[in-house]
Amino acid sequence: MVTKNQIKLVTSLQQKKYRNQHGLFIVEGLKTVREILNSELKPYAIFVDQERHKTDLGDLTFLVSPKVLAQMSGQSNPSGILGVFHIPESVQPSLDNWIIALDAIRDPGNLGTIIRLCDWFNVKHLVCSKDTVDCYNPKVLQATMGSIARVNVHYMDLIDFISKNDSVPVMGTFMDGSPLYKESFPKRGILIMGNEANGISNPIEEQVTHRIGIPQFGEHSTESLNVASATAILLSEIRRG
Amino acid sequence: MVTKNQIKLVTSLQQKKYRNQHGLFIVEGLKTVREILNSELKPYAIFVDQERHKTDLGDLTFLVSPKVLAQMSGQSNPSGILGVFHIPESVQPSLDNWIIALDAIRDPGNLGTIIRLCDWFNVKHLVCSKDTVDCYNPKVLQATMGSIARVNVHYMDLIDFISKNDSVPVMGTFMDGSPLYKESFPKRGILIMGNEANGISNPIEEQVTHRIGIPQFGEHSTESLNVASATAILLSEIRRG
Repeated sequence: MVTKNQIKLVTSLQQKKYRNQHGLFIVEGLKTVREILNSELKPYAIFVDQERHKTDLGDLTFLVSPKVLAQMSGQSNPSGILGVFHIPESVQPSLDNWIIALDAIRDPGNLGTIIRLCDWFNVKHLVCSKDTVDCYNPKVLQATMGSIARVNVHYMDLIDFISKNDSVPVMGTFMDGSPLYKESFPKRGILIMGNEANGISNPIEEQVTHRIGIPQFGEHSTESLNVASATAILLSEIRRG
Repeated sequence: MVTKNQIKLVTSLQQKKYRNQHGLFIVEGLKTVREILNSELKPYAIFVDQERHKTDLGDLTFLVSPKVLAQMSGQSNPSGILGVFHIPESVQPSLDNWIIALDAIRDPGNLGTIIRLCDWFNVKHLVCSKDTVDCYNPKVLQATMGSIARVNVHYMDLIDFISKNDSVPVMGTFMDGSPLYKESFPKRGILIMGNEANGISNPIEEQVTHRIGIPQFGEHSTESLNVASATAILLSEIRRG
């Protein structure tokens, strides 16, 4: 039996304030919930629409009515499976590999896609400026497709983080940067990706040691690439060797 | 003065059926409207919120009340500028360069991002299966950031299109394809990108002459890359030479 207070708690997790207060976040959909159950993240409770699923997802499963599930869900068409997980303890970002640093990424779809890219290209740590969208925002999680379980996402002061790690190259992408195809990428470093509208902010730009860019082909017409597309191209280039 | 019938016409363009019937589509936002006005696309009318903008956007500009603009707009926070443009006449896709072919792409954000990528990487023709999302869907247009004006998007039977153009390599991306980093890309060809959930469908797969893939790094965990991210990586690889 699920109490009114539990429903209220889960519903509140649609908001960042309550996610931080309770140290919990929501994921929806059987596939993603299963993927996160198989990871190191700890489940708090799994709610299953009793009229739609017979799936046994372990001890913490609660069967609920479609009405209760709809109340908890942030989706207009709830999938029938909603998992509540503990936000993991923050570990120190390790610089033995590449780290991506995000300067004020605002679009949840972009952050989710970048987390998925980090997972694909074996980037274990993603460092976000404090004004980057929350990685436990339901729209971000939907775009990560479960990758959130395998990438450590940190929120911290970027200037502080970079200045404490000045032994590695700090690469930033700029419209006038040198073509990345001519770059030889070392085994480790920090790659900074900037805000969707404004790019990398001035104080962060001052800490960049390598200015790189993705060349445009044909007529110079488009203003910029989408930040997730640019991240995809850079990570592929870093890993291709 | 804008008539009731005009308002009704513009409002109807949120739906594909009426866009096709009238041969018109909507774009919103000053920046994108300006970019499209500077292209070869022909404007039908530009509606400007008289309380928010003083911008002169040419002869076809109509000043309207915020209420009328909100009625026409598909956005919850209308930007105050709404352009209606003629859907361009379809030209024959030309095979003197690379062509991207999309097999049942459903997500408007993905299609918009792919159009923007084509523009960046000088791909002039994008051939879409008939069940790919409409490129004049407002959510697609929002993601293209004006690139729609410089990329020819065609909707046609993919099998028919590919079989009529069998003189060029037909590349398809698959999880088990050969690593793209070892591939040498010719000057022209057809690159097929598949559906978000199911990849390239069987009948299309039969027409593929080169099966390629983007290698995963680290543990094999993530199921796949987002299709727009994969397109970004492939186009970069095709153009880097």
